[in-house]
Amino acid sequence: MSDINATPRAPRNIHSPTIGIIGGGQLAKMLGQAASQLGVQVIVLTDNPQCPAAATCHRIITESSNSLASLRELASQVDVVTLENEFVDAALLRQLEEEGHCVRPTSRSIELVQDKLIQKDVLRAAGLPVPAFVDIPTRESLDIAIAQLGLPLVLKKRRNGYDGKGNATLRKIEDAQKVWDELSGNQHALFAEGFVDFTHELAVMISRTPEGASAIYPVVETIQKDHICHVVKAPAQIPIDVKTRAVTLAKQAVEAMQGVGSFGIEMFYSRSGEVLINELAPRVHNSGHYTIEACECSQFENHIRTILGWPLGSPTLNAPAAVMINLLGMNNGHGYPMGIGQALQIDGAHIHVYGKSLSAPSRKMGHVTAMGASLDIAFELAQNAAKLIRFGDSKI
Amino acid sequence: MSDINATPRAPRNIHSPTIGIIGGGQLAKMLGQAASQLGVQVIVLTDNPQCPAAATCHRIITESSNSLASLRELASQVDVVTLENEFVDAALLRQLEEEGHCVRPTSRSIELVQDKLIQKDVLRAAGLPVPAFVDIPTRESLDIAIAQLGLPLVLKKRRNGYDGKGNATLRKIEDAQKVWDELSGNQHALFAEGFVDFTHELAVMISRTPEGASAIYPVVETIQKDHICHVVKAPAQIPIDVKTRAVTLAKQAVEAMQGVGSFGIEMFYSRSGEVLINELAPRVHNSGHYTIEACECSQFENHIRTILGWPLGSPTLNAPAAVMINLLGMNNGHGYPMGIGQALQIDGAHIHVYGKSLSAPSRKMGHVTAMGASLDIAFELAQNAAKLIRFGDSKI
Repeated sequence: MSDINATPRAPRNIHSPTIGIIGGGQLAKMLGQAASQLGVQVIVLTDNPQCPAAATCHRIITESSNSLASLRELASQVDVVTLENEFVDAALLRQLEEEGHCVRPTSRSIELVQDKLIQKDVLRAAGLPVPAFVDIPTRESLDIAIAQLGLPLVLKKRRNGYDGKGNATLRKIEDAQKVWDELSGNQHALFAEGFVDFTHELAVMISRTPEGASAIYPVVETIQKDHICHVVKAPAQIPIDVKTRAVTLAKQAVEAMQGVGSFGIEMFYSRSGEVLINELAPRVHNSGHYTIEACECSQFENHIRTILGWPLGSPTLNAPAAVMINLLGMNNGHGYPMGIGQALQIDGAHIHVYGKSLSAPSRKMGHVTAMGASLDIAFELAQNAAKLIRFGDSKI
Repeated sequence: MSDINATPRAPRNIHSPTIGIIGGGQLAKMLGQAASQLGVQVIVLTDNPQCPAAATCHRIITESSNSLASLRELASQVDVVTLENEFVDAALLRQLEEEGHCVRPTSRSIELVQDKLIQKDVLRAAGLPVPAFVDIPTRESLDIAIAQLGLPLVLKKRRNGYDGKGNATLRKIEDAQKVWDELSGNQHALFAEGFVDFTHELAVMISRTPEGASAIYPVVETIQKDHICHVVKAPAQIPIDVKTRAVTLAKQAVEAMQGVGSFGIEMFYSRSGEVLINELAPRVHNSGHYTIEACECSQFENHIRTILGWPLGSPTLNAPAAVMINLLGMNNGHGYPMGIGQALQIDGAHIHVYGKSLSAPSRKMGHVTAMGASLDIAFELAQNAAKLIRFGDSKI
């Protein structure tokens, strides 16, 4: 582990900045929207030139993002390199830093986060509460873990999992081999976590500057369906002391990762009253999409600000309540929704269509955010619009 | 005058729409921001590939926008053609319509608006109050106009004026030749208007659907400096009956032009208590930039909605007051501002940097919008940020 992080590079030219984003999905697109308002130029590295971010970037470098050559090409044209997913190898990012490029968050942060077993180790070493977990390097160690953690347990790939992909819940001992095979345990490094009996899943977005100042967004409740974020309610309806604990843990978690930029911290609020850190994302996050309309400065704008060394904007909610509902693909089909003409009639529902070429079952295709005097009012508004929109409808 | 407008074409494919914008300035850029949220693709026709709209469009056709060939190239790739300025010749747009393309606003509307003398004729014929005006086809007719309208009078080019360019105020009879020469009266068609002694300049944005439904934004006060919009205050502090008159006139003016899309209507509130229509812009307008943050649905989103035949969004103010301050270039120089790092410390000031390559004196380089419990509070917030930002500072 190099000490390059001790003196991270500053962006080269903050008087007319260009940022490079690794990845071209909806997160890169919404970063591009925030950047464009501030006149910040954006270059995206992605292998898909028809990506969502094509709408809000100045240029696309159409290359794989896990190649040093293409990362160098990106870095050479921008003042700071950032990312919209944690799948790029930290060693490649470190190479960019060693060649003098500014990478934010740093390779060190990505290294600590992208392998979820290392992430958990770092969090535990920092004294932060996490679910019980053990490394599962071999098939045999899974049997030992079952004995140690009990059932059910959650088996996870150490790298590249998202939206439930790379996770499987083991409920019965006789399914051990099946679940091992499902995650291709012989090819992929796995680890296991004890099952947490939770009443709420919580999330907090934090934007952190290179100097360590933080903008902390409200604690929200996230509701998953089939392991995919479905609804986000801001603020979460939980006791104030639980909120305080969640905020404190989230802040400490980002500090443990030496994070710079916007980070998403997912937590469990357990039936027994504990708050446990589930997972950390070193980037803008689905649980913070509501901040575009509902907060004074969005997670996206604050990411741009922090990676450029600019001051933080206020994360304050500008309405009593906000609800975000994801729009998922129903089927394989066209990426543009049926029903948007009807949905736009719902005043107060802010509809986002990501502009993906193709829909697929459960693919994140867009989202709706609504604000209101209460969570119920905001939910109803958002839901009224969301239910009218259909992606991958075969009738198109 | 063809009757093509009686049955305007619909966009070809509203299930995955692409719009084409003639012009690539800040208005096209902000239209692109609104389009991107709705997943609407954008192609821009401009002769400057480093234009502001490069940040928010999928593709640029780098050609002159006053050539039929390039307009055809744009139209052939999009579902609807729209524009960010009224300088493209209406006859070229009519040719596109006759070839089966959807143009919104229609060529007919542009024809009625782009020549300001025709515009005034149409408004007067519709029974709407306008300042006294006369055609000035020759140098001699200027002398007649002076006798008829009195002094001061305002001499204007019939076409292509903006931000005071193409206008001159004639105060003394002995300056008649000078002002005539200044506007190149021998080359350009001119007209003259009687000077209006006003206490307020007012503006209203209206978004109008092809079926004639309108979203009417609040009446705002615009404060010009050297003929350039400097500050917009929403809502204007004028008696309620004056507001009602202004809204009624604005709506009738857009109807007279058979407008589709967002239109800006500038008016004078005279010392004698009259409301007179000054000018109409058949497009999104500087006086409506505040709607991005301060209204439920912005003038830009409503323009996209109306030209695609989608329902109107609500133009309601979501704060008691909003103020927009333009950021103008100080000098020739770099297009990125000094001081943005300081200005971003002002919580609640929403800073927009257009991303122009070069600054020039009085060039519109960006703007700041702030909301507040009163106009004074909003103005102070916006002003605190605006005064920190400097474009074209020689120290860059």
